[in-house]
Amino acid sequence: MTLLGALDLGGTKILAGVFEADDLDVGEPAGLTAWRPVGRRQVKTRAEEGPEAVVARMADLLRDLAGSRTVRAVGLASPGPLDTRRGVIIHAPNLHWRDVPVVERLEGLVGAPVFLDNDANLAALAEWSVRDGPDPLLLATVGTGVGGGIVIGGEIFHGFRDAAGELGHITVAAGGAPVECNCGNRGCLETAASGSALQRRLRERLGRDVTAGELARLLAAGDPRALEAVSETARWLGVGLAAAAALLDPEVIVVGGGVAGLGEPFLRVVREEVRARLMPASWRGKGGPQVEAARLGRDAALLGAALLARRRLAVGGPHNGKDGKRDPRKGDPA
Amino acid sequence: MTLLGALDLGGTKILAGVFEADDLDVGEPAGLTAWRPVGRRQVKTRAEEGPEAVVARMADLLRDLAGSRTVRAVGLASPGPLDTRRGVIIHAPNLHWRDVPVVERLEGLVGAPVFLDNDANLAALAEWSVRDGPDPLLLATVGTGVGGGIVIGGEIFHGFRDAAGELGHITVAAGGAPVECNCGNRGCLETAASGSALQRRLRERLGRDVTAGELARLLAAGDPRALEAVSETARWLGVGLAAAAALLDPEVIVVGGGVAGLGEPFLRVVREEVRARLMPASWRGKGGPQVEAARLGRDAALLGAALLARRRLAVGGPHNGKDGKRDPRKGDPA
Repeated sequence: MTLLGALDLGGTKILAGVFEADDLDVGEPAGLTAWRPVGRRQVKTRAEEGPEAVVARMADLLRDLAGSRTVRAVGLASPGPLDTRRGVIIHAPNLHWRDVPVVERLEGLVGAPVFLDNDANLAALAEWSVRDGPDPLLLATVGTGVGGGIVIGGEIFHGFRDAAGELGHITVAAGGAPVECNCGNRGCLETAASGSALQRRLRERLGRDVTAGELARLLAAGDPRALEAVSETARWLGVGLAAAAALLDPEVIVVGGGVAGLGEPFLRVVREEVRARLMPASWRGKGGPQVEAARLGRDAALLGAALLARRRLAVGGPHNGKDGKRDPRKGDPA
Repeated sequence: MTLLGALDLGGTKILAGVFEADDLDVGEPAGLTAWRPVGRRQVKTRAEEGPEAVVARMADLLRDLAGSRTVRAVGLASPGPLDTRRGVIIHAPNLHWRDVPVVERLEGLVGAPVFLDNDANLAALAEWSVRDGPDPLLLATVGTGVGGGIVIGGEIFHGFRDAAGELGHITVAAGGAPVECNCGNRGCLETAASGSALQRRLRERLGRDVTAGELARLLAAGDPRALEAVSETARWLGVGLAAAAALLDPEVIVVGGGVAGLGEPFLRVVREEVRARLMPASWRGKGGPQVEAARLGRDAALLGAALLARRRLAVGGPHNGKDGKRDPRKGDPA
């Protein structure tokens, strides 16, 4: 049995897992019944110690989890922007890293090929893999910010510069947006539909910060201020997802991340807004896009990383190749 | 030599052309040096006469252009929404048509397979074919409304319901949009960045309607009211294209349609707005998306229709097949 390593590098924590390759179905969706890692661990990132220390910690984690066995390949999920082909983290604001050749460094320590992709992209691939082959699939992760991933024809869609799927930075309120985004613009979806935006609205209405647990209690009690804040955030997400759907015409839209954890009170409003903004004339009797909750929770990107490693190993092709341009139709399985 | 027919069905006019198949390069971009039709004609649509009369007129046009020869296949560009696989125009507002099985009817008259696709999609394919294989390519057509087409990996991207690329109906101004769109929503790009929006702005500033020729003279004379109206329209288009670019990460954005005919005074502002709204961190030294004027003018969709017919004939596969789901990676060349 072939052992694969998977890592999900985040601003505050690192998730690591090892998977049996045979448990991971490649290419065909809905076959992924046994996706659970044979070993899994979570540690703090401690990004302030610098890339070298963090990469060493990731290698140690995999070694510990593998025990006496060896991992044949590693998938690495990372925040971006990335250069997935060169294996470089170009800029990870939450880690305060720039231009880190993370693949080369990690390969040097684990002695196996490492494959890098964006965490939201890999979460999208994983959510695709546990469904009946939806095409296209659009994933929105709504946490502190808003991220996105697109799967077309069962493969992660990267665009020309590895920059596709930046759902959080589409402009939805160019007219009168009060809040400036971290990216420097005004009117970004992220400023209107993120967990931070929800917190801002709760603060405005309740006069103080609200924890996730408290918010859940307020919603359960039917507190109108909490319901309003959640519903306004959901409507904005719906506006952004409808814009994305007008362009991509996804079969399924998956909503994940912490805010999606609010469940149906949130998702129902998102769904209504998406459907209200799309033109049913073009649906050919198929109905509008499904808007569904993510199924994989916090392990989505980790599983996506394992799938990436599995696919790359299966095709045996060059990993993070340095050759020219990507052709989405040929031999680049993820 | 194989003769192909091409039709571009519009609300006011029908363009028809016949092409030598060998003049049309399939699959490989930038090889399209001899794309001119061997015969070409334009007539009024007269949609009020009904689908049957219009389809008969299209068949007559092709017969006249082909002379003593026979067309082996026909590509048909139509406004949508369409069902390209069943060959049905689901709804063409400008024609006042609903559920017209245009492919079946036209095939009955011309005695050759007919392949249907959206006019903006086919214009995008044609613009792709005269460039160096940009991937992805996003086309915006800015006329009375705003249309869009997406080419990924050299193939038209249709999405799940043949509804992808609806650039005109992404929401860019959800906050305070004053103008309701034909689709029923507020804040659509089409209400802010179309020729109609430009006319509205000119009327507001000049107190009367302005013809295209007069607008050109005003711009040449540096009239500040005309420049402002054009520049505001261009900025809104830039907002929408930046949103689309954040999702699709196109290598090239092509801007066509009547309003794009204003040239650099318009395109320069579009380009500035697109670049200002995207995050250069992810560009990996490749620069932001090129924003270019369309190269094919009014014949773009006609050429795209000819290319569609050429490709479908070349693969010899089922045309407008009634079988299940499209797999964008396999055997569906356009």
